[in-house]
Amino acid sequence: MSLAEKTCTGFVEVLASKAAVPGGGGAAALVGAIGTALGSMVCNLTIGKKKYAEYEPHVKDILKRAGVLEKELLKMIDDDAENFLPLSKAYGMSTATEEDKKIKEETLEKALKQACSVPVAIVKASYEAIKLHEDLVDKCSKLAISDVGVGVQCLRAAIIGAHLNVIININSIKDTAYIEKVKSEVEPLVENGTKIADEVYDKVVKILTK
Amino acid sequence: MSLAEKTCTGFVEVLASKAAVPGGGGAAALVGAIGTALGSMVCNLTIGKKKYAEYEPHVKDILKRAGVLEKELLKMIDDDAENFLPLSKAYGMSTATEEDKKIKEETLEKALKQACSVPVAIVKASYEAIKLHEDLVDKCSKLAISDVGVGVQCLRAAIIGAHLNVIININSIKDTAYIEKVKSEVEPLVENGTKIADEVYDKVVKILTK
Repeated sequence: MSLAEKTCTGFVEVLASKAAVPGGGGAAALVGAIGTALGSMVCNLTIGKKKYAEYEPHVKDILKRAGVLEKELLKMIDDDAENFLPLSKAYGMSTATEEDKKIKEETLEKALKQACSVPVAIVKASYEAIKLHEDLVDKCSKLAISDVGVGVQCLRAAIIGAHLNVIININSIKDTAYIEKVKSEVEPLVENGTKIADEVYDKVVKILTK
Repeated sequence: MSLAEKTCTGFVEVLASKAAVPGGGGAAALVGAIGTALGSMVCNLTIGKKKYAEYEPHVKDILKRAGVLEKELLKMIDDDAENFLPLSKAYGMSTATEEDKKIKEETLEKALKQACSVPVAIVKASYEAIKLHEDLVDKCSKLAISDVGVGVQCLRAAIIGAHLNVIININSIKDTAYIEKVKSEVEPLVENGTKIADEVYDKVVKILTK
């Protein structure tokens, strides 16, 4: 059964259990989808308001892109779970002979790279959603500005959470060229994304407490 | 229908819409429940392991408390939505006469205090769950340490997100004694909770990258 189709209560219950999936990667994907959805909500509360009419085409573009990212992030909950199974199997493989050991090592390396791919995708999607919030914060209804702040905080948790899941996979991967490639892709997004999320949040607080 | 009983996909969809509920408060409660559940998962992956036997009674206590907080946070998704309805009604009341205005103002003040109560409760529950992670990080299976990091990041988003929802209600409340009481209750928890979450996260990163 799809994890994204579980009830919120059901998802939290299975997450809390010792079941192999969902884990931190799936949780990060869901929290990213929630953060992105808060941005969409703010778009929907801005569209149609006379006061923000000049921004409307732009806000509609943000909403459209956020809708795609939400679906992608929800799908990543299940993708992450599916990619964990081959890894879990590989860990259980025999090491009785030298030949067994070699096969296990190769299978493990492949499974680790596969398991790493979804957290990388969560980092990328969360980064893009943070950038949408950065764009939105100056163009949205001030009545909904707090939700932009909650949105970027959720996405900040998602991008950092996904990064932790990249790190744990990389820690066991042996292919140094692959590791460098993933690091060079992911690290600037995490650093920059966290920084932008903090800036957007500070802007929201300034508006709310002035 | 209960929001916590919606599917994850369904929750994200209704959150993204312009529907009055759920909003940032409900999202914060759900993200708090997810963060707490990650702590529970780490407890469950630690209990029964010989290597951590000395911590087992303590970890079992953390798990028990986390289970209660998860249920409370899930319930707060719907509590927050229910408390928004009287506020939404109050905003729509007539101001035709001076008498009307006076009644509206009184109703609004009461509804704002009611709407403020759940975000305050989310701050308190998230703070407690962050403290559980602080306790857990030194006593849990190192194989699951990344999930403690994802957990505190979710709870950091939850406590800050809930605080934003306290602020928006307080901004419209007139009773200064009430405002001071809520601020003195909530602000130290948010400041301290964020600080502890960052410290726990730094500890996790240090373990993962050493």
